[in-house]
Amino acid sequence: MIYSTLKKLFFLSAMAFVSACDANNVSDEQWRALEVNNTVLLTLPQGKVVIELAPQFSPKHVEQFSTLVKKGFYDKTTFYRVIDGFVAQAGPKDGSDKDKSVAQLAIEGEFITDKDWSFTPVQSDDLFAMQTGFKGGFALAKDNDSAWLTHCPGTLAMARGNEADSASSHFYFVIGQAPRYLDRIMTIFGRVVYGMEHIQSIQRTSAIEGEYAIDSREHTPILSMKLMADVPKAERIIIEVENTESTSFAERLTKRRTRQHEFFYKKPPPVLDVCQVPVRSRLIKNDKA
Amino acid sequence: MIYSTLKKLFFLSAMAFVSACDANNVSDEQWRALEVNNTVLLTLPQGKVVIELAPQFSPKHVEQFSTLVKKGFYDKTTFYRVIDGFVAQAGPKDGSDKDKSVAQLAIEGEFITDKDWSFTPVQSDDLFAMQTGFKGGFALAKDNDSAWLTHCPGTLAMARGNEADSASSHFYFVIGQAPRYLDRIMTIFGRVVYGMEHIQSIQRTSAIEGEYAIDSREHTPILSMKLMADVPKAERIIIEVENTESTSFAERLTKRRTRQHEFFYKKPPPVLDVCQVPVRSRLIKNDKA
Repeated sequence: MIYSTLKKLFFLSAMAFVSACDANNVSDEQWRALEVNNTVLLTLPQGKVVIELAPQFSPKHVEQFSTLVKKGFYDKTTFYRVIDGFVAQAGPKDGSDKDKSVAQLAIEGEFITDKDWSFTPVQSDDLFAMQTGFKGGFALAKDNDSAWLTHCPGTLAMARGNEADSASSHFYFVIGQAPRYLDRIMTIFGRVVYGMEHIQSIQRTSAIEGEYAIDSREHTPILSMKLMADVPKAERIIIEVENTESTSFAERLTKRRTRQHEFFYKKPPPVLDVCQVPVRSRLIKNDKA
Repeated sequence: MIYSTLKKLFFLSAMAFVSACDANNVSDEQWRALEVNNTVLLTLPQGKVVIELAPQFSPKHVEQFSTLVKKGFYDKTTFYRVIDGFVAQAGPKDGSDKDKSVAQLAIEGEFITDKDWSFTPVQSDDLFAMQTGFKGGFALAKDNDSAWLTHCPGTLAMARGNEADSASSHFYFVIGQAPRYLDRIMTIFGRVVYGMEHIQSIQRTSAIEGEYAIDSREHTPILSMKLMADVPKAERIIIEVENTESTSFAERLTKRRTRQHEFFYKKPPPVLDVCQVPVRSRLIKNDKA
């Protein structure tokens, strides 16, 4: 009797889950574990950074980047183009053999969406797009027929030359106000989920008029960059991120839009900038255990 | 003959200047010197930061802040609330005698604008406001009858309690994506014009779930904070900032909107986020000369 009740409960809850997925991919799980094969540990002199990759959106870029990371390609390269309020960019020396050894990639800046394509909506009539939202932890924007990951602080994307399909190994993190004019014409393929303060403290390389140029010996180096799966278990940093398909995240969006706290003695406009909605992380295990 | 021609030329160009000022305050000066009585030198362990105050918009807050700065009020206080992607906040210990010694201020979050009120327009139908623009180097937003300084990275504003008129001495810098939902309900009274990278590297104080709390002994201290007028001349950092009322700045806005460079093989939407338009600074003299 107990067994059959349990079995029935299990069946019902499984059905509920399937139905929620069918409807709009909603789940009750507030947190989501990251896949170790899809997570990168970046070690800088100032600290460790964890990055989640986005193979579901930019498969070719993630494949190439992961292959390079596994080879230690980025170890000892430096952040050679770091503009405060804009981006921190790294890669091998321009035009070097190492640089030229990497194949160029076709851009993966946006993707077609059909009517069954689900996401967590954030804002209609956003300044830069018809609609913004989240999917799988990533901020996105969309119009009627396509969607694209959108440039927010912490975004990881491939740099390129003037040609659309000229990205290879150079990448950048966004470290300032979202440069959303780069959306669709650059390939975003990951985001920082831990240690963003270390990315923010990378040595700036651009001098303003009247300043001495920054000596390249001061550029922040990448001590190492590894797939988390290749890091010894004891040294892994295990992170979970907020599940942007959860009901709790949707509720948080609503609260953030309506600002009920008494601090808001006058209510702001009931709108949300998708890049100003933090997707939370929590630490499950640090690198010292 | 030469004299009278020169005189005539002078007269004509002076007229043109006056007429441009009358129309919308346009000037041909690309750069603007900062007033030493209106500029603050903040010394952090990691470097020096220059702040321009905004007495034209928030006179009472600037007056109180300047008085405190002149007294050395902030020296040895710490940034005790620093949230990555949001704000770095400093002030005396909450509830201490020092804290309670400072008078509370009536909020100066917005101001009435009449039809002659001029500014450099950036964007209509911005997500958060009818209109955005710049005036005197400061990003602002407005509707039909009023305008307000808007929260962008580098903005300096007074913190407060739940009551509108409860700001006193605690202040914050914006260090992440513009939290524009704070517009009008906080008093912005300055902005960072030099050394923003040092503000970005202030020790974060908020731990995520699962992390150890940050020991307060690690909080970044303010080594000193002085009005530039009170700094010995040899140690002053002299900065000029882009004149946001200049024709060259207006042209830069147009270029930034239309993105003519071949890098933009596909054009972004012809819109501008006022917080993503850098107002440039240039260094006239550093603190070592």
